Amino acid sequence: MVKLGAFDFAGGTVDHVNAGIAAIVTAIMLGKRLDYKGHAIPAHNITYVVMGAGLLWVGWFGFNAGSGLAVDGLSANELMVNHIAAAAAITWALLDWFLDKRPTVVGISTGAVAGLVAITPAAGFVGVSGALIIGIVVSLVCFAVVAYVKPKLCYDDSLDAFGVHGVGGIIGAILTGILATPAIQSAYSGAAYGNFHQLWVQLIAIGATIVYSAIGTYIIFKLTEKLVGIRVEDKHEARGLDETQHGETAFTNFD
Amino acid sequence: MVKLGAFDFAGGTVDHVNAGIAAIVTAIMLGKRLDYKGHAIPAHNITYVVMGAGLLWVGWFGFNAGSGLAVDGLSANELMVNHIAAAAAITWALLDWFLDKRPTVVGISTGAVAGLVAITPAAGFVGVSGALIIGIVVSLVCFAVVAYVKPKLCYDDSLDAFGVHGVGGIIGAILTGILATPAIQSAYSGAAYGNFHQLWVQLIAIGATIVYSAIGTYIIFKLTEKLVGIRVEDKHEARGLDETQHGETAFTNFD
Amino acid sequence: MVKLGAFDFAGGTVDHVNAGIAAIVTAIMLGKRLDYKGHAIPAHNITYVVMGAGLLWVGWFGFNAGSGLAVDGLSANELMVNHIAAAAAITWALLDWFLDKRPTVVGISTGAVAGLVAITPAAGFVGVSGALIIGIVVSLVCFAVVAYVKPKLCYDDSLDAFGVHGVGGIIGAILTGILATPAIQSAYSGAAYGNFHQLWVQLIAIGATIVYSAIGTYIIFKLTEKLVGIRVEDKHEARGLDETQHGETAFTNFD
Repeated sequence: MVKLGAFDFAGGTVDHVNAGIAAIVTAIMLGKRLDYKGHAIPAHNITYVVMGAGLLWVGWFGFNAGSGLAVDGLSANELMVNHIAAAAAITWALLDWFLDKRPTVVGISTGAVAGLVAITPAAGFVGVSGALIIGIVVSLVCFAVVAYVKPKLCYDDSLDAFGVHGVGGIIGAILTGILATPAIQSAYSGAAYGNFHQLWVQLIAIGATIVYSAIGTYIIFKLTEKLVGIRVEDKHEARGLDETQHGETAFTNFD
Repeated sequence: MVKLGAFDFAGGTVDHVNAGIAAIVTAIMLGKRLDYKGHAIPAHNITYVVMGAGLLWVGWFGFNAGSGLAVDGLSANELMVNHIAAAAAITWALLDWFLDKRPTVVGISTGAVAGLVAITPAAGFVGVSGALIIGIVVSLVCFAVVAYVKPKLCYDDSLDAFGVHGVGGIIGAILTGILATPAIQSAYSGAAYGNFHQLWVQLIAIGATIVYSAIGTYIIFKLTEKLVGIRVEDKHEARGLDETQHGETAFTNFD
Repeated sequence: MVKLGAFDFAGGTVDHVNAGIAAIVTAIMLGKRLDYKGHAIPAHNITYVVMGAGLLWVGWFGFNAGSGLAVDGLSANELMVNHIAAAAAITWALLDWFLDKRPTVVGISTGAVAGLVAITPAAGFVGVSGALIIGIVVSLVCFAVVAYVKPKLCYDDSLDAFGVHGVGGIIGAILTGILATPAIQSAYSGAAYGNFHQLWVQLIAIGATIVYSAIGTYIIFKLTEKLVGIRVEDKHEARGLDETQHGETAFTNFD
């Protein structure tokens, strides 16, 4: 057995690229929601969006800095780059501002998650400047996918699992292969530090993940469709899945 | 003075058995809500239920692993068994699924709290397999109490303080006396490791807690009833206690 | 250059006094909301108030105990005094109870934040008894400002940034100069331990911060007013700033 040697500190390809590809394959195979008009439906409760993004931001400290399995100088760097990449969400807010007139809370929350996704494979290999580049680039690319590619291709990915996790995971994996610096761990260098081969390795890892995830998702989807069915009846979708499928609604009013 | 020598790592009997017995005594003495029909009233906001259960889960790490008063290998085990017992909440979801057709968010949240309650006395004495058994058994027993015993006896325990904290605390205390393993702390063995006497000690501790809590609650209840009164007027209960007793409502709409 | 030598452990003057003065200057210059009647408008969602106060309480552990830049016995004391000062919020609840008939959730949440603000400059210099005094005194003073001074002067400070952060920050800075005890750090004593000069130093630091913040805020306000305008049109304020200025509303209902 030959080891490929991809750099993936806390599991960017196994987690985010994998999940993002599974999401887009599922979104295409399942089809759109009946009431989907090709653009994002406004969030029901923005407070929950911010709480969710905040919990992810904090939890991700444990995920990225914990993946070093030690409390040392390296984990301090992991905490820092995790924070920097998330905070680069300001990029998403600026894009919203310049292109759509106003920064939005949902936009900056999405940018923070994109930054966290992209720093995941890099957390143990890049420094602060690398994290900043990763956070900015991932917002630029994911924004383009979510704002332009998604409406164009008209797939219905309600949480942007592909646009943020899939695309962000790919950007993170590529940039890890470029920006990994021997200043953090001497044995791990990327293309920017002379190790051009690493970029090629990262691309193979990404490609392999995409192929594996796409085929696996296709098979699981088809099996599930045959065995238990996968799309609810139109009338159930119209009434809402909470009520018709889960028998439990988010809010109950008493008066 | 003779020490009993009960195993209770982070305070399962002093906290949960005590609170659960106080709850059932109070629920019986106070009587039912006017609009109580003998079955659970749906949660007003399930997002809050999940947030609350999540905060308890995270906070409980501090409670159980902090009770060792040290950061060492033992506290790592305490963190792990805390997590395993909570995650065994999947048992509650499966019970909901098989017996009521669908798993519910409120059910799995309740199961997680039950697991946390039951692992509390055991956190410093059992390993991963012990925690898994505790988490599964506590969900089985508490589910039975909440779903069958409560409607049968028709007491009104709105948060299942008895069904989850009281019963879960008793289950946890008993299982600690059975599953405590010398592999974690060599001086602490339960019945499963030959120390049958410990199970007897645990039962005495539970019994003493029940008697103490029941009598204490009865006295406090009677005193409170005499001094300030304990049941609000029916018309106040109908309008809601937030408004009539606290003068502060959870939500204010501005339009 | 002469160093003043003010005691300000985690940044009470640079953060809270500064912010509080900026808030009151802005509130006066900007004027009141159109629908402001001189008394507090009830919170829209008290669950969010409690969540926010809880997150501040927990986050403040990192802020105050982290400012020592070490994990040692001193940081343990910082964690403890942070907690004690916040928990002295019970003072605010008692004031609500005795003066307004009932303790309120919003009141105890406000008291907790006031305690956290006031302990910020003192966290590395006082012990548990000092923290308790700080937490109680800050609730007494801030309550008086929020409940009596604000309606009297009729400025519109919706979040009580001045009444809690500004006044609380000043109280904290003064009490740090009194209660700093050599028992915590031998080189730092306050007036209560014979170092009367320190109280004078604290007052100079507070005064300098007030002057700096007031002038700076005035200049920034005037510049902003000239360059982009600072008060929205009345019709926009009536419709709400979320919709008219941010183009994003907190809640979207789908039915």
